[in-house]
Amino acid sequence: MLRVVIIGSGNVAQHLARVFSKSEDSKLVQAFARKPQNLLHVLSAEQVTDNVNDLVEADVYIIAVSDDAIAEVSSLLPFSGRLVVHTSGSVHLDAADNRNRRGVFYPLQTFSKKKQVDFHVVPICLESENAADYKVLEQLARTISGIVYPVSSAQRQALHVAAVFVSNFVNHMYDLGGEICNDNAIPFDILKPLIKETADKIQEMPPREAQTGPAVRNDIKTIARHVNFIKDNNLKELYTLLTQSIQSKNGEKL
Amino acid sequence: MLRVVIIGSGNVAQHLARVFSKSEDSKLVQAFARKPQNLLHVLSAEQVTDNVNDLVEADVYIIAVSDDAIAEVSSLLPFSGRLVVHTSGSVHLDAADNRNRRGVFYPLQTFSKKKQVDFHVVPICLESENAADYKVLEQLARTISGIVYPVSSAQRQALHVAAVFVSNFVNHMYDLGGEICNDNAIPFDILKPLIKETADKIQEMPPREAQTGPAVRNDIKTIARHVNFIKDNNLKELYTLLTQSIQSKNGEKL
Repeated sequence: MLRVVIIGSGNVAQHLARVFSKSEDSKLVQAFARKPQNLLHVLSAEQVTDNVNDLVEADVYIIAVSDDAIAEVSSLLPFSGRLVVHTSGSVHLDAADNRNRRGVFYPLQTFSKKKQVDFHVVPICLESENAADYKVLEQLARTISGIVYPVSSAQRQALHVAAVFVSNFVNHMYDLGGEICNDNAIPFDILKPLIKETADKIQEMPPREAQTGPAVRNDIKTIARHVNFIKDNNLKELYTLLTQSIQSKNGEKL
Repeated sequence: MLRVVIIGSGNVAQHLARVFSKSEDSKLVQAFARKPQNLLHVLSAEQVTDNVNDLVEADVYIIAVSDDAIAEVSSLLPFSGRLVVHTSGSVHLDAADNRNRRGVFYPLQTFSKKKQVDFHVVPICLESENAADYKVLEQLARTISGIVYPVSSAQRQALHVAAVFVSNFVNHMYDLGGEICNDNAIPFDILKPLIKETADKIQEMPPREAQTGPAVRNDIKTIARHVNFIKDNNLKELYTLLTQSIQSKNGEKL
């Protein structure tokens, strides 16, 4: 059974600690945290250390810290030649200290502290310096998820940008829609089935094909009414730019 | 049992014809279509007429045609004093001919011809000129959906703009994310669990609270890397504007 150590105590570290501590196919042997209390709702006090010199042997060390801290944290590890991976969507494999065998273990999901995540459907994007380590990482990833992909550092950079569009920007669209509802005494709940259906649709068909609305129909009257309705200048600019962007991608349909 | 006639043969008309023809609590007595063949996969030939003078009596006539055609189609009906509603998200109740009792029956959902919709969870937004007609519309709506809201024409205009943000613009974000994947030999499937989780999250918490990513973290390095990574100027402008918009709404978190 693969032994794993988690380094870090933030959002991703906490989610990983929870899922690995529940896994029956891998063993979370320890976690390192400068603030051990952040992990004590998931792990017992004996499982957590705040001293790097106390780190035990493991097959994989997962550094789940902020992007900026990866280089430093990896350089502080008091051992060499072991498999040490980070979890960042945007940091190159090379950023970690090269005394250890480097890799990436990037769970592509949006993690909030308040909401538990079903890890079985979280894609784990893996990268390593050599094929043997890839196999170890793949075996480890499969103990918590059914979806595992090899993703190079260059691809991961692209994937991270794509994830910003389909998750962070999408959530912001929800936020803006909710604000319009709120300003007009409409409950946000009324939009929730539409939000769900819009997300469900692209599980079955490409988004280009699923596109609906005034922009793709080139419904100039409705677009003009909407732009006129929106008073906030930033919102107006966003509406116009997004409408143009939809039209530029769907030119053949117009 | 309420008797309903559907006028129109487009996307929404087809979805309504399907769901009303299956309902056991209301009766679709007829449909009118200039091109009856558009409805023959849902209704029998005897149920469809292309002559307004053949329209039978019903409790509610639902005009499901394009926004621009509502005024004209409603003026062509050869009767008066009956309850006639349109299904548009953005056309005022007053736009219909006033010889009949006017109303709105707006199903707030994204309809594609290729994907069936579970109407039980489609919010139906209702409006009428008087309270008695509202009760009829509410009774009719409840034969196909569990979610019914009173929504004024002014609110419906706002709701339609909000729907463009949370559905049309969201789908376009999926499209842009998919394009980035495609350009970098990454399967779009890898983003699907993230898309689902992002939509699921706001069923439980407000979008403002669910916001994650470099913009809300004010992670300047990652934002700069992303802007640098994006070569297409329109995409770059969108990324920048959306990042700024997130930051302006989440100022207190930064």
